Amino acid sequence: ELFVLTYGALVAQLCKDYEKDEDVNTCLDRMGYGIGVRLIDDFLARSAVKKCRSYSETADVIAQVAFKMYLGVTPSVSCSSAAGNEFSLILDKNPLVDFVEKLPAERASLCYCNLLCGVIRGALEMVRLAAEVTFLQDKLRGDAVTEIGITFLRKAEE
Amino acid sequence: ELFVLTYGALVAQLCKDYEKDEDVNTCLDRMGYGIGVRLIDDFLARSAVKKCRSYSETADVIAQVAFKMYLGVTPSVSCSSAAGNEFSLILDKNPLVDFVEKLPAERASLCYCNLLCGVIRGALEMVRLAAEVTFLQDKLRGDAVTEIGITFLRKAEE
Repeated sequence: ELFVLTYGALVAQLCKDYEKDEDVNTCLDRMGYGIGVRLIDDFLARSAVKKCRSYSETADVIAQVAFKMYLGVTPSVSCSSAAGNEFSLILDKNPLVDFVEKLPAERASLCYCNLLCGVIRGALEMVRLAAEVTFLQDKLRGDAVTEIGITFLRKAEE
Repeated sequence: ELFVLTYGALVAQLCKDYEKDEDVNTCLDRMGYGIGVRLIDDFLARSAVKKCRSYSETADVIAQVAFKMYLGVTPSVSCSSAAGNEFSLILDKNPLVDFVEKLPAERASLCYCNLLCGVIRGALEMVRLAAEVTFLQDKLRGDAVTEIGITFLRKAEE
């Protein structure tokens, strides 16, 4: 909970610093990227996961190992493209928003948890996987579920 | 580690926002205060600690229960005043600085972990204990240990 509240303080500070939600979102994503780039070593050391052989396996590891390890929750994973490079992580419960009831009206397009997208993107890049990671749905913005979309951009190097 | 890195991103952002270390320190303390005020309920619910009967017992609970719960470390406690209202928490290991090697020269008076002081102050205030909480020593600033000083300002209400 200390983490959750500290994250809230970070978002609040960025909202003070930037007027536009888009700028806050970009900043959170950029910060997350820097975090993911550093977090990957900790993750590989602690998880002892082996090299993934497919995008699908990679998405499963993110959901079942990484989310579990760092956030204590396990999103469900679904593949959302015939090409097999787009995945959705569906979060029933998002611990990062435990203390947030709803976004204020003037912050309606804030991606409150956008840091997570950056973290995933940064961490994937360090294992040579380029990906776009974005919030597709967010309960905080009134959607039914919270959904993070991961689109892998090129073949994993063997 | 996600928390530690996120905290680092928060401090980095504040360093961008404020030129003076003192302003960053104040801001971290103020944010921490807001967090402590909210965290206390979580702490009381999860720890099931009873009402403390003395400052000494309170300091022990902070070190042995609260630090353990939220940061995974247990500082040692010593009483540093004859009046029995001043305590030092000595941290051999400070997990919040795991990824920080040293402060840059231009940030020599930054209290990197000042959020913690605010958290303790805010949480104590919610159980009707006024206190001053400051970093007395900090390994990041070249001291031998990291030491948080807590000075209780008036009698605990019975």
